[in-house]
Amino acid sequence: MRVRLTVAYDGTNYNGWQMQPNGVTVEEKLNEAVSALFGRKIQVIGASRTDAGVHSLGNVCCFDTDTRMPAEKISYALNQRLPEDIVVQDSCAVPDSFHPRYAKCRKTYEYRILNRRFRMPTRRLDTYFYYYPLDVERMQEAARFLEGEHDFRSFASAHMQTKTSVRTICSCLVSRQEDVIAIRVTGDGFLYNMVRIIAGTLVKVGAGEILPGQIPEILAAADRSAAGPTAPAHGLTMIGIEYL
Amino acid sequence: MRVRLTVAYDGTNYNGWQMQPNGVTVEEKLNEAVSALFGRKIQVIGASRTDAGVHSLGNVCCFDTDTRMPAEKISYALNQRLPEDIVVQDSCAVPDSFHPRYAKCRKTYEYRILNRRFRMPTRRLDTYFYYYPLDVERMQEAARFLEGEHDFRSFASAHMQTKTSVRTICSCLVSRQEDVIAIRVTGDGFLYNMVRIIAGTLVKVGAGEILPGQIPEILAAADRSAAGPTAPAHGLTMIGIEYL
Repeated sequence: MRVRLTVAYDGTNYNGWQMQPNGVTVEEKLNEAVSALFGRKIQVIGASRTDAGVHSLGNVCCFDTDTRMPAEKISYALNQRLPEDIVVQDSCAVPDSFHPRYAKCRKTYEYRILNRRFRMPTRRLDTYFYYYPLDVERMQEAARFLEGEHDFRSFASAHMQTKTSVRTICSCLVSRQEDVIAIRVTGDGFLYNMVRIIAGTLVKVGAGEILPGQIPEILAAADRSAAGPTAPAHGLTMIGIEYL
Repeated sequence: MRVRLTVAYDGTNYNGWQMQPNGVTVEEKLNEAVSALFGRKIQVIGASRTDAGVHSLGNVCCFDTDTRMPAEKISYALNQRLPEDIVVQDSCAVPDSFHPRYAKCRKTYEYRILNRRFRMPTRRLDTYFYYYPLDVERMQEAARFLEGEHDFRSFASAHMQTKTSVRTICSCLVSRQEDVIAIRVTGDGFLYNMVRIIAGTLVKVGAGEILPGQIPEILAAADRSAAGPTAPAHGLTMIGIEYL
């Protein structure tokens, strides 16, 4: 059977999701736990290859197994073998045709900015600290220009390798709760670093360096240098993936 | 002049506030930073000696200095010398008679319980994970019995050394936001482990093991064994101190 896992992690101590020669990754820890549980080498296939320092409440991966263990019990068995900063939130059986990366879905990310006079130690790992006051209404106005289907080439890192840079953002909502500004973006897929570049650009809007009305020009430029900087990884949290 | 600091810290990596032979403490880091800044050995006097693992958004301490640096700039200078998990939020000059522990004040603490099916890695350091569903309405009902002036001997650890165990709780509010239950307690002072024992007792109430109406009996018993267990330190955050 094919098993789908929903995985939450604090990305602070990992070199991102994807296996690589240097540094420990989330995928590696999952492969180890799944392989140990079923007594043979198993590699999970992940939905979203989050960068080093990025957190997740619900990334998705899957693997095949011939176990008789009920799929929904696998989460508990894996959590016994995982470190405390990676916790499987759900396990279930899915059709053998399911592929976490190719299946049609909507992904939601949240970028958090701590906007206050002093750093707050208890929020240092999951928010990006920004000292100067940010105008949330302007950020909201700018965010609306990003919604819909656009060529997001200006919002993708140069090492982008995908065929098309056209994506659809279903919603891009900016809200403030006390001193944390959250940018929550839902879309059918994201280019490399796209959410962090959106966040970096909206921070420039909030600071008054870019006007909300300039967003359409930035999109039209189809040039990475037209947008704002890539905001730091640790402010980003993948919220979840909804398969359609 | 006497300088008052308001200090936030993530208590995860410290052996509590107070200087001691084993382990690094918050007070020690502050003493080092203040002494280095002013070029002579200075020891701060803290308001609340939080336990190992307890966090703070606004603990208070003070020290004397003959510097000409404006008091409100001292916070910035100290933050240059402090680790990233300790950040001074405010510095100001206070009368020489001010003593952070003896001055009349109201302290507010918040105890957070993560009440859901699976652990959430991003909240593992500032919430206490509790799997079984908790009834917040019962917890609220029980909390109301704790408000007011009472002998809190049942809610103090055995090694309590203070003369009287009578304290006044101005408010004890229980609220739920998604899967986090917060117990926010404001009072004129707290006995050793008092907030953590209140939290441990309210968890028992939420789980149905203690009835809200039993709280007056527990108070009347004046016996530590009548109350619930001491909830773990890492769920506790000192919110702040208001001097009256």
